[in-house]
Amino acid sequence: MIKVGIVGGTGYTGVELLRLLSAHPHVQLVCITSRKEDGIAVSDMFPSLRGRVDLKYVMPDCADLTACDVVFFATPHGVAMTQAPKLVAANIKIIDLAADFRLKNTADFEKWYKMQHICPDILEEAVYGLPEINREAIKKARVIGLPGCYPTSIQLGYAPLLAQGKLLVNESALVSDSKSGVSGAGRNPEVHTLFAEAGDNFHAYGVAGHRHLPETVQGLQAIAEGRPIGLTFVPHLVPMIRGIHSTLYATILPEARHIDFQALYENYYRDAFFVDVMPAGSHPETRTVRASNFVRIAVHRPGGGDTLVILVVEDNLVKGAAGQGVQCMNLMFGLDETTGLQHTPIIP
Amino acid sequence: MIKVGIVGGTGYTGVELLRLLSAHPHVQLVCITSRKEDGIAVSDMFPSLRGRVDLKYVMPDCADLTACDVVFFATPHGVAMTQAPKLVAANIKIIDLAADFRLKNTADFEKWYKMQHICPDILEEAVYGLPEINREAIKKARVIGLPGCYPTSIQLGYAPLLAQGKLLVNESALVSDSKSGVSGAGRNPEVHTLFAEAGDNFHAYGVAGHRHLPETVQGLQAIAEGRPIGLTFVPHLVPMIRGIHSTLYATILPEARHIDFQALYENYYRDAFFVDVMPAGSHPETRTVRASNFVRIAVHRPGGGDTLVILVVEDNLVKGAAGQGVQCMNLMFGLDETTGLQHTPIIP
Amino acid sequence: MIKVGIVGGTGYTGVELLRLLSAHPHVQLVCITSRKEDGIAVSDMFPSLRGRVDLKYVMPDCADLTACDVVFFATPHGVAMTQAPKLVAANIKIIDLAADFRLKNTADFEKWYKMQHICPDILEEAVYGLPEINREAIKKARVIGLPGCYPTSIQLGYAPLLAQGKLLVNESALVSDSKSGVSGAGRNPEVHTLFAEAGDNFHAYGVAGHRHLPETVQGLQAIAEGRPIGLTFVPHLVPMIRGIHSTLYATILPEARHIDFQALYENYYRDAFFVDVMPAGSHPETRTVRASNFVRIAVHRPGGGDTLVILVVEDNLVKGAAGQGVQCMNLMFGLDETTGLQHTPIIP
Amino acid sequence: MIKVGIVGGTGYTGVELLRLLSAHPHVQLVCITSRKEDGIAVSDMFPSLRGRVDLKYVMPDCADLTACDVVFFATPHGVAMTQAPKLVAANIKIIDLAADFRLKNTADFEKWYKMQHICPDILEEAVYGLPEINREAIKKARVIGLPGCYPTSIQLGYAPLLAQGKLLVNESALVSDSKSGVSGAGRNPEVHTLFAEAGDNFHAYGVAGHRHLPETVQGLQAIAEGRPIGLTFVPHLVPMIRGIHSTLYATILPEARHIDFQALYENYYRDAFFVDVMPAGSHPETRTVRASNFVRIAVHRPGGGDTLVILVVEDNLVKGAAGQGVQCMNLMFGLDETTGLQHTPIIP
Repeated sequence: MIKVGIVGGTGYTGVELLRLLSAHPHVQLVCITSRKEDGIAVSDMFPSLRGRVDLKYVMPDCADLTACDVVFFATPHGVAMTQAPKLVAANIKIIDLAADFRLKNTADFEKWYKMQHICPDILEEAVYGLPEINREAIKKARVIGLPGCYPTSIQLGYAPLLAQGKLLVNESALVSDSKSGVSGAGRNPEVHTLFAEAGDNFHAYGVAGHRHLPETVQGLQAIAEGRPIGLTFVPHLVPMIRGIHSTLYATILPEARHIDFQALYENYYRDAFFVDVMPAGSHPETRTVRASNFVRIAVHRPGGGDTLVILVVEDNLVKGAAGQGVQCMNLMFGLDETTGLQHTPIIP
Repeated sequence: MIKVGIVGGTGYTGVELLRLLSAHPHVQLVCITSRKEDGIAVSDMFPSLRGRVDLKYVMPDCADLTACDVVFFATPHGVAMTQAPKLVAANIKIIDLAADFRLKNTADFEKWYKMQHICPDILEEAVYGLPEINREAIKKARVIGLPGCYPTSIQLGYAPLLAQGKLLVNESALVSDSKSGVSGAGRNPEVHTLFAEAGDNFHAYGVAGHRHLPETVQGLQAIAEGRPIGLTFVPHLVPMIRGIHSTLYATILPEARHIDFQALYENYYRDAFFVDVMPAGSHPETRTVRASNFVRIAVHRPGGGDTLVILVVEDNLVKGAAGQGVQCMNLMFGLDETTGLQHTPIIP
Repeated sequence: MIKVGIVGGTGYTGVELLRLLSAHPHVQLVCITSRKEDGIAVSDMFPSLRGRVDLKYVMPDCADLTACDVVFFATPHGVAMTQAPKLVAANIKIIDLAADFRLKNTADFEKWYKMQHICPDILEEAVYGLPEINREAIKKARVIGLPGCYPTSIQLGYAPLLAQGKLLVNESALVSDSKSGVSGAGRNPEVHTLFAEAGDNFHAYGVAGHRHLPETVQGLQAIAEGRPIGLTFVPHLVPMIRGIHSTLYATILPEARHIDFQALYENYYRDAFFVDVMPAGSHPETRTVRASNFVRIAVHRPGGGDTLVILVVEDNLVKGAAGQGVQCMNLMFGLDETTGLQHTPIIP
Repeated sequence: MIKVGIVGGTGYTGVELLRLLSAHPHVQLVCITSRKEDGIAVSDMFPSLRGRVDLKYVMPDCADLTACDVVFFATPHGVAMTQAPKLVAANIKIIDLAADFRLKNTADFEKWYKMQHICPDILEEAVYGLPEINREAIKKARVIGLPGCYPTSIQLGYAPLLAQGKLLVNESALVSDSKSGVSGAGRNPEVHTLFAEAGDNFHAYGVAGHRHLPETVQGLQAIAEGRPIGLTFVPHLVPMIRGIHSTLYATILPEARHIDFQALYENYYRDAFFVDVMPAGSHPETRTVRASNFVRIAVHRPGGGDTLVILVVEDNLVKGAAGQGVQCMNLMFGLDETTGLQHTPIIP
């Protein structure tokens, strides 16, 4: 059994980790920390876990963390990097759901997250936890920086176009019009995520700049073997609980007009269990991946013209966070990456 | 492996059966019928099942049905009774999610469902599929009439009060104020269940009389060892997808004022895996059982007075339909009743 | 023109007051205060008011308040009573949307609101602002304590039964099962009213005791000419933005079994512009009063038995708060009570 | 008073027309037709109109239509053109909310609507009812083809860029990523607009081609003085009732990089009462125009680069349908275009 600890399990990614890990056949949940809820039973906070999880929250300095094989951080940005050095020194693996180990450039990190990076050496060895792109590196990693929810959908959507060893689309003018359910904003109470504010309403936000932009560009550039990427990213808030839908636009270059993009996508993902390239003409719905680790993608070329439209859906709390973390953990411990992640999506 | 057939799997209870049965460790899905969708792949209709269910819909007279050990009917009322005689004769067990085998009195059936009953003999042997009440009978049953979604919540909510061998509350004036998510109305398109009608809206319906009233009264009377029951039942439509919340009222009789009702409920359900009596003072939320087979109950006695308020939540598609069906199937085939039903509820 | 000030206009009742008053033909909005938003334009906070309201928030001690004819308090409980003495002394009328002037018994106020009442003399002269019950007193009032949202629906629903000068129902065992949209909880960010918490979810709350209970009982007793009232009140949270639905239960006394309750209700409200007694058999939907000051009521007697079921819908922010305040203001200043309140409800 | 008739008033645009016209100070509602609901009171179908509209539905051949000054068609596509010749001959003005008089090219109409056009002569004289673009022509029109809901938002969003007499952006590669609430799909019951399907869900549709594309391109080309326009249009369904949000992308040409686009938009719409160009940096929310005739627009240029992002919100049933129809009617009858359309949006 893999001994697992969770730091900061009172938010949505935390409770989702608990749902997944408590039913994982090779995991033993050892401890979960929360400064604020110290002493409270997890199932008192989340009654959905009554009878499933018997742990109580403990203080973050709990000794049990160091008895773990792996620790997940479901904390605000900046927490994981303060505890990482000690854990790494104790040979404990780390999977961070926040942004501490995503941006390789510390200047970028400091610009977008308004804090200095504490352990750039660990950052340097950290692996970006997107298994469909980095599977082999993840297997050997000690520290994982899990992708953000939006970046997962955008990278998986563009990867087949960028990874062909030649230019197929205008990579300097990509557009991702992305839409997220409200759980993506977390469980901290704020006015704009109240039901009476976000309900029956729709709007864009962060058009001038969003933290997920530099991370996504970094990832896309890596997929494109270092070629520069120009991306316009516009996130929107949808009155639903879970789900991300990214509508991706790309302009096909003249020399790529003959390509069968449907086949290209199917081929690229033929061995990716969690990525489903749907039949031509499909319109994936976010609910078709609800509460599951699947991503569904559809490839469109309206009117046979030069604009590609790629539709990508994921569950932001699963493939966009906790599920992807468990997928990485499976790889890090030599398990099949689908272990404990075979949930059928919930419809309706 | 239990060979399972499903008749009529294009509605919400059908797709929920598919979700549960396709992951059940002792089930082999043999066939699923739909006159209208004959030849269509199940996963084309419900892309959430892509990679999980490989069946295509076939015509209802499909020979494979008779190769099954058990057939679920997820059909409109009146279909199961037309096919039951043939299946029973072939020693195939039947679990009907509709109303054909619920009401023991055929006159009641005919009054509320506007059709004559075709096989009153099978109706007579049919067992009402509420395991927490009828577990032993279900184990031996050949034909199960599964309870309606509302009746499940109301019977489980009142059962501890009625099953004590003596009068504790005024059984002639029970009130169930029940609220259901919209999936309870099914997948047939109707104006009143459109998003733009049911969304951001709330109302009662069927106050003059609802089909679930006679069924619930029949069930409550059986629990009360035949004593007459008077029930006012007011259903309401909630702008949510899944979930039923029944708020039950009962007037405590003077001779029962001393009773510790919290203890009485905990004791009654101490061996019922799927029924969770929450701590005193709780307010169960429908989402705490979302996509699971659990029922949660809280017992209140406001101001220590003579009115009991019992709060009951269930997922109408799971414990209120498909999940309860699988629970019955488990019992009928000698399995632990929780087999394949251990899903943790989805929050948020 | 009536010069109007608003204290505390950053919540939902505040913005609703602004919507109604800015289009009122006899009102001049003079000032609106908010300690926190001092200097901010109202339309920056609520862009729906761009071009409709030109005011900026000012500090609460703003001199302009004393230039008003009437001041609305859309503040937390306890604010109005601190400013009331000065305003009353300056001959300025007060309409308080909070609870400061609702409960006549200061001990009750202190028990339920955990603060001492500052000006019991003003409380004593304050009139309970429910025009359909207290129209004449409101016309002469200097200080109005506006009813809570739930109490408005419950009192208007039971009034015809209690105001007949004789007992018709068992007044010691009334039950109000009430359901409210989330805006009723206000615009202060709290976890339980987040979209991802309250959405696709339903639950009761405050079963052990809710502040609106003593207020409602006080009001019902006044309607019942002082007879004692026993009320069980169970509020629930509905995943919708606006709207209250109270489902009221009452047991008909033997001597009242012959009464035509439909006629009794129609007769009682025949001159009440804002109260619509719907035809027998109706199920009023909350959206049929959305964004309007109307209340709709339906009277049911299931199976012709002894249980009356009264269905009442209102918009909690209009008839349950701001609209009722404007209705009172109209009466206090000699206008027709419908002035500026003739909005047609918004469907869909 | 303008005598108004409505053909087909049982859908969402119909009930919205009734809400607006019944409160319009210069309108007398003369008749409303519905073959299916003949004899039914409008307020029985839409209880929100109780006490506001006293009409009953009558058969479409009702003589009263010919006593009208203007007739609105809130019917399926293809109905208005069958009745138009007779009405035009009788000097009755026509405002069609469907598509019969939108597409100037009958071949386009026949391709996208699968029916032959019956009266191409009337189509030829018909005016496209977008007042901010065609105000003078509308004043003199006898027949109005009202824009679709999506095309209104897209044309108003791009107009300032296209109407400058010179190329500012790459007009051959515009992208409109549009999102609509579910009421846009109408009140006809269909599976995909059921609450349990569309709720808590998000997806694109019609990527291969949508009827609003040719109409929008026709309109944009007219605004661009006949220059060809290339538009990729991807509509999405949002789990909300009302509202459209179009996120428009355009690539700035090198020669236009110096332009102050914020000023350009503000200047273009300085006299348009219903179009609100918000301050730089804004993110308009659909609810800020809910139930009103306003459109709000924000202009973004992320990172000061070459991609313009224009955000446009409207209420699809008001500015996208019924409200725009009333605005046109006002112009056709010499009234101020804002008459009867001054509703403040509903928040929350």
